[in-house]
Amino acid sequence: MTSEDKLLARVTRAVSSVRGGNCPDLRLGIGDDAAVIAPVSRTEWVLSCDAFLEGVHFVSKLHPADSVGYKSLVRATSDLAAMGARPRFFLLTLALPASQTGAWLGQFLRGIVRAARSLKMEIIGGDTTKSPRVSASITVLGEVSSGKALKRSGARPGDLIYVTGRLGRAQLGLELILAGLGRKRRFARFVRHHLYPAIHIELGAWLARSRIASAMIDVSDGLSSDLHRLCEASRVGARVEAGLIPQVAIPSGFSRQVRRLHLDPERMALRGGDDYALLFTVPKAKLSRLRRAPEFSKLTRIGEITRARQIRLVSKDGKSRRLAPTGWDPFKER
Amino acid sequence: MTSEDKLLARVTRAVSSVRGGNCPDLRLGIGDDAAVIAPVSRTEWVLSCDAFLEGVHFVSKLHPADSVGYKSLVRATSDLAAMGARPRFFLLTLALPASQTGAWLGQFLRGIVRAARSLKMEIIGGDTTKSPRVSASITVLGEVSSGKALKRSGARPGDLIYVTGRLGRAQLGLELILAGLGRKRRFARFVRHHLYPAIHIELGAWLARSRIASAMIDVSDGLSSDLHRLCEASRVGARVEAGLIPQVAIPSGFSRQVRRLHLDPERMALRGGDDYALLFTVPKAKLSRLRRAPEFSKLTRIGEITRARQIRLVSKDGKSRRLAPTGWDPFKER
Repeated sequence: MTSEDKLLARVTRAVSSVRGGNCPDLRLGIGDDAAVIAPVSRTEWVLSCDAFLEGVHFVSKLHPADSVGYKSLVRATSDLAAMGARPRFFLLTLALPASQTGAWLGQFLRGIVRAARSLKMEIIGGDTTKSPRVSASITVLGEVSSGKALKRSGARPGDLIYVTGRLGRAQLGLELILAGLGRKRRFARFVRHHLYPAIHIELGAWLARSRIASAMIDVSDGLSSDLHRLCEASRVGARVEAGLIPQVAIPSGFSRQVRRLHLDPERMALRGGDDYALLFTVPKAKLSRLRRAPEFSKLTRIGEITRARQIRLVSKDGKSRRLAPTGWDPFKER
Repeated sequence: MTSEDKLLARVTRAVSSVRGGNCPDLRLGIGDDAAVIAPVSRTEWVLSCDAFLEGVHFVSKLHPADSVGYKSLVRATSDLAAMGARPRFFLLTLALPASQTGAWLGQFLRGIVRAARSLKMEIIGGDTTKSPRVSASITVLGEVSSGKALKRSGARPGDLIYVTGRLGRAQLGLELILAGLGRKRRFARFVRHHLYPAIHIELGAWLARSRIASAMIDVSDGLSSDLHRLCEASRVGARVEAGLIPQVAIPSGFSRQVRRLHLDPERMALRGGDDYALLFTVPKAKLSRLRRAPEFSKLTRIGEITRARQIRLVSKDGKSRRLAPTGWDPFKER
């Protein structure tokens, strides 16, 4: 065996301990030149790819290896949630320096295994190679009933805009880590949102199955950017009420250290990355059925889709301003 | 639009100019959170992933950007050929420095478009991000008639071992480039094997469809390593006759410059990477039907599968030695 084969065998052994349950449609798993899956009638395959890179999306000195593994799979799979698909399989391309093929890789694999287990996903392909910096590229496959995948492009003027959870929590977690406060126990719940994000598979699948949402996207680069993407695809605009955006609450008991960071909850909600919330639109006629949604209590209406193709942010005093897509962008300096 | 969106839109626009022909099964292409494909009865999906990294698999100073684009897709797709699958779709995760998002990216995209066109493949997913070094991670999807995918694991003692083309040609091309001779016209055909490799889709599909081959793999890391992988998966060994291995012929008219490189054709065949030849086994009872194969004239029998689980290389004088997997390995120094 070459060193590359041994490394790939190690990755395979670790990650393929997780089986995606009963998979009669997986004809051939990882280990050959390619995997083989059989079609199941009345379902469609949903596919997406995502890169997670050292120095761009994470920093090995600040982010534990198991978080890197966990998050690399979860963030890729969030795109399946945003289509209303049920996650099934993934392929992992992992490049890393020889110096990180020991304990670091072990922790990374533990993280990805934990994510695969909780998402009920099975690895079906892998490639490992050497690189001066770690990079994990993941392709995810999910399934959805034929014709039920929820696109970004279905929003219509008058539809109401909803979002899950609180926005900016992951950004707050990152700010705490960058300020050297990441290991303090009282900040743990914020840091967790950044290191081990939760995604919304059940809600996404329900919204697609029930045909209640007209369009959906996941908020991975900040509300301002992802709402723009949804509106662009739907050829519509939006009016968002700033006062309705579910922002992260910074407890008043937080130390001066945190206050010194001058964190702005609205800014973190609009521009912060890594929340993996679902952002979706609901025609008013279907609103009464929305209360049956999983996680209904965590949904917040933040505005309405408009015909005018721009996004306006209305503040509490009634003044409105144009909201530009100012979310996270790897090609911009921080 | 964020810079990342603009870049992804540019990649998408360029590459999605190539349509994979009539695709009634592609329900939703690139541009949403994920792509959606519908199942076609009696076919199965074949999936594989592959990384192509600056400094590991190519060097921007030596390899033209269009070769990097071309080769990144072709080498990934070679794994589909090795399963006997017909290529259909791919997902591209591209990380690159801001300095290479201009002309370099244009050339890269031209290369990948040319490969997609010749392979009749359509892009269905993409992710772009910043990175100090270029990396292209590609997931490819192909289709095969149900139950017909050709695995590595079907070789049985007594089966004959075949390989396509001449081995070591890509390595010779690389050696010429490294020696600064890559632009000389008389070396062009060798350099081309390294920069723009050909793969064997038709032959692979025929071998799978006809059920004539018992096992197959593509030779991407040198015969010694890939034969080991096939034998390992099949739990068998092999006896290879050194004199039968179709080695690259170094024309006697080559200059002293080339002779000074001390190139060993046998070593390049056994250890050189990037040939993307097909290596397959055929039970003796099916041998007579093999002559109907596409590219039959380019096939060479190099040995036989054995029960003893080791690989022996028999030289012309009848002496045999154990052949270790000494092919290309990113974790070994050159």
